[in-house]
Amino acid sequence: MNKKLNSKKPVVSIIMGSDSDLPIMKSSAEILDQFGVPYEITVLSAHRTPEKAVEYAKGARDRGIQVVVAAAGGAAHLAGVVAALTTLPVIGVPIKSNLNGLDSLLSIVQMPEGIPVATVAVNGAGNAALLAIRILSLANSELQKKLEDYRLSLKNKVMSKAEKLEKEGYKAYLENLK
Amino acid sequence: MNKKLNSKKPVVSIIMGSDSDLPIMKSSAEILDQFGVPYEITVLSAHRTPEKAVEYAKGARDRGIQVVVAAAGGAAHLAGVVAALTTLPVIGVPIKSNLNGLDSLLSIVQMPEGIPVATVAVNGAGNAALLAIRILSLANSELQKKLEDYRLSLKNKVMSKAEKLEKEGYKAYLENLK
Amino acid sequence: MNKKLNSKKPVVSIIMGSDSDLPIMKSSAEILDQFGVPYEITVLSAHRTPEKAVEYAKGARDRGIQVVVAAAGGAAHLAGVVAALTTLPVIGVPIKSNLNGLDSLLSIVQMPEGIPVATVAVNGAGNAALLAIRILSLANSELQKKLEDYRLSLKNKVMSKAEKLEKEGYKAYLENLK
Amino acid sequence: MNKKLNSKKPVVSIIMGSDSDLPIMKSSAEILDQFGVPYEITVLSAHRTPEKAVEYAKGARDRGIQVVVAAAGGAAHLAGVVAALTTLPVIGVPIKSNLNGLDSLLSIVQMPEGIPVATVAVNGAGNAALLAIRILSLANSELQKKLEDYRLSLKNKVMSKAEKLEKEGYKAYLENLK
Amino acid sequence: MNKKLNSKKPVVSIIMGSDSDLPIMKSSAEILDQFGVPYEITVLSAHRTPEKAVEYAKGARDRGIQVVVAAAGGAAHLAGVVAALTTLPVIGVPIKSNLNGLDSLLSIVQMPEGIPVATVAVNGAGNAALLAIRILSLANSELQKKLEDYRLSLKNKVMSKAEKLEKEGYKAYLENLK
Amino acid sequence: MNKKLNSKKPVVSIIMGSDSDLPIMKSSAEILDQFGVPYEITVLSAHRTPEKAVEYAKGARDRGIQVVVAAAGGAAHLAGVVAALTTLPVIGVPIKSNLNGLDSLLSIVQMPEGIPVATVAVNGAGNAALLAIRILSLANSELQKKLEDYRLSLKNKVMSKAEKLEKEGYKAYLENLK
Amino acid sequence: MNKKLNSKKPVVSIIMGSDSDLPIMKSSAEILDQFGVPYEITVLSAHRTPEKAVEYAKGARDRGIQVVVAAAGGAAHLAGVVAALTTLPVIGVPIKSNLNGLDSLLSIVQMPEGIPVATVAVNGAGNAALLAIRILSLANSELQKKLEDYRLSLKNKVMSKAEKLEKEGYKAYLENLK
Amino acid sequence: MNKKLNSKKPVVSIIMGSDSDLPIMKSSAEILDQFGVPYEITVLSAHRTPEKAVEYAKGARDRGIQVVVAAAGGAAHLAGVVAALTTLPVIGVPIKSNLNGLDSLLSIVQMPEGIPVATVAVNGAGNAALLAIRILSLANSELQKKLEDYRLSLKNKVMSKAEKLEKEGYKAYLENLK
Repeated sequence: MNKKLNSKKPVVSIIMGSDSDLPIMKSSAEILDQFGVPYEITVLSAHRTPEKAVEYAKGARDRGIQVVVAAAGGAAHLAGVVAALTTLPVIGVPIKSNLNGLDSLLSIVQMPEGIPVATVAVNGAGNAALLAIRILSLANSELQKKLEDYRLSLKNKVMSKAEKLEKEGYKAYLENLK
Repeated sequence: MNKKLNSKKPVVSIIMGSDSDLPIMKSSAEILDQFGVPYEITVLSAHRTPEKAVEYAKGARDRGIQVVVAAAGGAAHLAGVVAALTTLPVIGVPIKSNLNGLDSLLSIVQMPEGIPVATVAVNGAGNAALLAIRILSLANSELQKKLEDYRLSLKNKVMSKAEKLEKEGYKAYLENLK
Repeated sequence: MNKKLNSKKPVVSIIMGSDSDLPIMKSSAEILDQFGVPYEITVLSAHRTPEKAVEYAKGARDRGIQVVVAAAGGAAHLAGVVAALTTLPVIGVPIKSNLNGLDSLLSIVQMPEGIPVATVAVNGAGNAALLAIRILSLANSELQKKLEDYRLSLKNKVMSKAEKLEKEGYKAYLENLK
Repeated sequence: MNKKLNSKKPVVSIIMGSDSDLPIMKSSAEILDQFGVPYEITVLSAHRTPEKAVEYAKGARDRGIQVVVAAAGGAAHLAGVVAALTTLPVIGVPIKSNLNGLDSLLSIVQMPEGIPVATVAVNGAGNAALLAIRILSLANSELQKKLEDYRLSLKNKVMSKAEKLEKEGYKAYLENLK
Repeated sequence: MNKKLNSKKPVVSIIMGSDSDLPIMKSSAEILDQFGVPYEITVLSAHRTPEKAVEYAKGARDRGIQVVVAAAGGAAHLAGVVAALTTLPVIGVPIKSNLNGLDSLLSIVQMPEGIPVATVAVNGAGNAALLAIRILSLANSELQKKLEDYRLSLKNKVMSKAEKLEKEGYKAYLENLK
Repeated sequence: MNKKLNSKKPVVSIIMGSDSDLPIMKSSAEILDQFGVPYEITVLSAHRTPEKAVEYAKGARDRGIQVVVAAAGGAAHLAGVVAALTTLPVIGVPIKSNLNGLDSLLSIVQMPEGIPVATVAVNGAGNAALLAIRILSLANSELQKKLEDYRLSLKNKVMSKAEKLEKEGYKAYLENLK
Repeated sequence: MNKKLNSKKPVVSIIMGSDSDLPIMKSSAEILDQFGVPYEITVLSAHRTPEKAVEYAKGARDRGIQVVVAAAGGAAHLAGVVAALTTLPVIGVPIKSNLNGLDSLLSIVQMPEGIPVATVAVNGAGNAALLAIRILSLANSELQKKLEDYRLSLKNKVMSKAEKLEKEGYKAYLENLK
Repeated sequence: MNKKLNSKKPVVSIIMGSDSDLPIMKSSAEILDQFGVPYEITVLSAHRTPEKAVEYAKGARDRGIQVVVAAAGGAAHLAGVVAALTTLPVIGVPIKSNLNGLDSLLSIVQMPEGIPVATVAVNGAGNAALLAIRILSLANSELQKKLEDYRLSLKNKVMSKAEKLEKEGYKAYLENLK
């Protein structure tokens, strides 16, 4: 239970259907940076670069990737297409789109029996990274420790906000939010 | 404007993600039979046979296929994946599913800029074939003639129903419907 | 397989229910311009100019039109009404509306058996034109070649973005996006 | 305020896109029968008999029709197409369909500015007739009286059910429902 | 067939659940002004002024009102509540709300058997007035004439836009739209 | 904190828009029976018996009713209309309908500011009664005790099912379910 | 029937999943202030501070809380989780989110049999407080009186707006709204 | 990379909110059986056994569980509640419900930042197990091999169906399906 991460070798791969998804997907990168998990990040389209997507998906495991995070919007096929060509866990991030993101969500989550995609919330880039880290933590006690610290920090942030709100009252708190 | 159809060589290809789609998709075949358009029909999955799907899509034009009709349900990626690998017109048929077909419809129709899929109604297998025939009719005056006859027959069916209903009254008509 | 396009004679007809659809529908025109496909573009309403719509639809084939692209929003009947009066392939573009475009999409795509409309994504004007070109390319090897070039250019754009992102890292890339 | 109804001359016209809508639409006929309002009932399709629909719509007012009740399912264009060609009030009945009737409802109700359709509930055939009668009652005090009686009868039915339920208790009442 | 409108006595009543609906509902008033139909306009809430709503609804017919236009958003009960207490035709206008207007639409249109509400599009205030005028035109040939003129003007507006677009080309037209 | 319940005097009132709601709403009665809470149950329609609904709502508090449970389907106005005329807490139960219950749910829950309705799940008749009992328990320690026992019994049922499933394995368990 | 409120001891507890909900939830606080109902307000997350949520829920009744108002967005579990651990009435406020609030609404309202949550409209913070006050008013005649005054003030506001609109006409009224 | 599975010690935990979910969730068990992955399966409710759920979630990692599969319907909180109390990857299975499963899906997938749930399709029990196996395969080359074999078997099943359909024609194939 102690697979060290080589800081140079990516174990998570973040792919997105378009560079317009990057302002959302940077949260995945930020979380992975924060946890010290090496990753690669690139643009790859099931529709515009289908051959590259196939090649990418097939080679990912051998290149050392352990989890793929795939983001796309609209008729979002990227995560499913990659999941069909690898046995790695693939996490899908539905990007908000024309139809409010419902199209992206359904296109990713409603995969047929046989080929699962681990879907997170619409625009849930940060959670996609945290899910990848939970998976990686199964073989890495350091990451597990960091996840526990992270949960603690989430809790502490809420607790200190609660304390502040209870102390100041909602009016002053709102005033300070501005 | 007179490309004759060789009765042996398929010009339409009907593909479906699962053989459970066949009870719906047989309507495509029946319409093509009725119009004398040679077609091939098979099962091909973007997720379960991805390499075959790629190979199929890339070779379709050279094999003489002119229109692809692709049916799938749920996170329905087949039509989009094929459309990404051919320049042929691809018609998508959303198959009714778990979520009433809305997932299938959105997964097929909401394609990103660059790769169009001509989407028809949920379970609209017959219309998919008719759309293929409209496309083929651009270079085939016989098909155009048959389409006009078909429209006339639709009209005549409605007209004779109308006549019957007007004559018999709705009660007798309903009685006879049973 | 080599029907040359006469640069003066429109083969695609772009119609829209209201001139307020033009800021979206110009993408259809731009794509057709880019591919050198002659087209006509006009406003035509199933509800406000019904007789003109009927007359238009009936005469389109004889005027040399091969594909109709029809855009409308809300209770979007234009594509269906035109499809009912011609045997040409009709492509429907749902324009985003009051209810997010779901009304436009369903009004266009859910056509009854007998009269198909080839529906593209909400606001998918560019893809409507590309679908028209795929159809025209069946009888025009030059267009087929251009479609292949276009797909290549899509791919290259994604590839060079991918390369840039991989090289610069996501922070610098995002900085440059602004 | 006393336009008598000639029992032979239809003032309401019930049209439906398909005879499969008749098991729903017979409720319109039954209500009109019950109120003694002469009507015509027929099948007429915006897509399969477009010319007849145009002709029908244009001639309706001159033929003495005062209200049109138009039913259709899916991409339900009939009511809108008729409303575009007459100045009569047109009542639309969305017929339950493939997508639960939401497609039918939105295709009918979301009409663009200029051409209204008075939409009732999904499968609301009885209410369509009652709405037609409310309209006719503006010039016919007998119908107005009958509407008041009808409302009274609705009320009495509910009241006697309430009384029965209160008296018997819910268990016995349910037992008797079977 | 010639019930003259007394210019002082309202025959249409426009009611809305909140004065925040007025920026939408003014279109009803403008259309009625344009057609010379006298109307009253006020705020009346099924939930905040229920007794006044009951009294209003019961008295409307006797006060000479012939059509009620009732607008509300969210759980929009106003139109249904009024329709339950009068035999006049009641037109419901769903006002866009928190949930995109789908809640308003369904709350108005899905009335139970017995009490119809003539529902128009989300925010369809203008069409509500036009529907009221269609109803009034049954007994008023002048209004019928005006409706025909109005339809003609709609048509002419579209035709002249079409002509302008065809003549100028879409680029110049778009430039002029700004 | 010890308001005893007189076993004869109803403190909860269960009203429903139609007796067709009774097969669902009997669960409310059964729960109240089980907790020994006296209730009345009747049919009352916002649309078919509006005056009775008004009178009912206005008199409820004085008659000793403390909580109203109001069920309706489609454009479900009953709960909102009653809530507008009483200051008692009103619990709304959306009854599954034509559009899957989404219409009923939105018609009940999306009440405008000022008049709240406590909405439970689609067909959630049992929970409506439990919510009423939670409210009554604020002044009745016996009911509070029973609620705790009820929660315990829910827990025990799940626990014994869990135990059985863990012991027997899922195959035997499923076999026994049949 | 006269449980006085001690102005220092909170009887309502307002909890929210995130301090970003406060700009909405302040309306709950404002209403409770207006009615003189003492309350506590804090941040508490089912997901980020689960243990605190459990402890909070279990202790609420003993601390004198009588009604809990719980707000959350997205997969909004807070209200349900608290309701599972207390026998107090729990009011859920769905906060508008990524998917328009439909996710928040369904996550709160669709509770399984056994554990009810009293759900109000999306962003319905004010109504949540009013519902709490209706519940408290069962044992407090002063609150009941204030609720009646409040309803009267709602009515008067609408009435004076109605009067103003009727007097000024809609154009002047709109002008003054700006 | 070779963590052997002890055939007695569960590494996957399948929990479901109600034993009525078992007819769906047995597919998870069947897949895990097929892959030789030891698992535990039980009933556990976020709402009916909240304390047990907390205790369960907190102890899972220490008991040797590596992946949790949590299924629930309606306001489905189980997966989120468990994910909040463990750092293990949690897979959520939305069970089809009253509102078609959309409520279950949104309640599970739309988790707030910080606490991810890996969501699969509505009723996607088999895929949940396959996703768990993909995760486990990162440290177990035997499972990886089995996943590859499984994918091959999926492919072969489709291929042999395709071959059969191509050979027999669709009519005979359909005949044999019966």
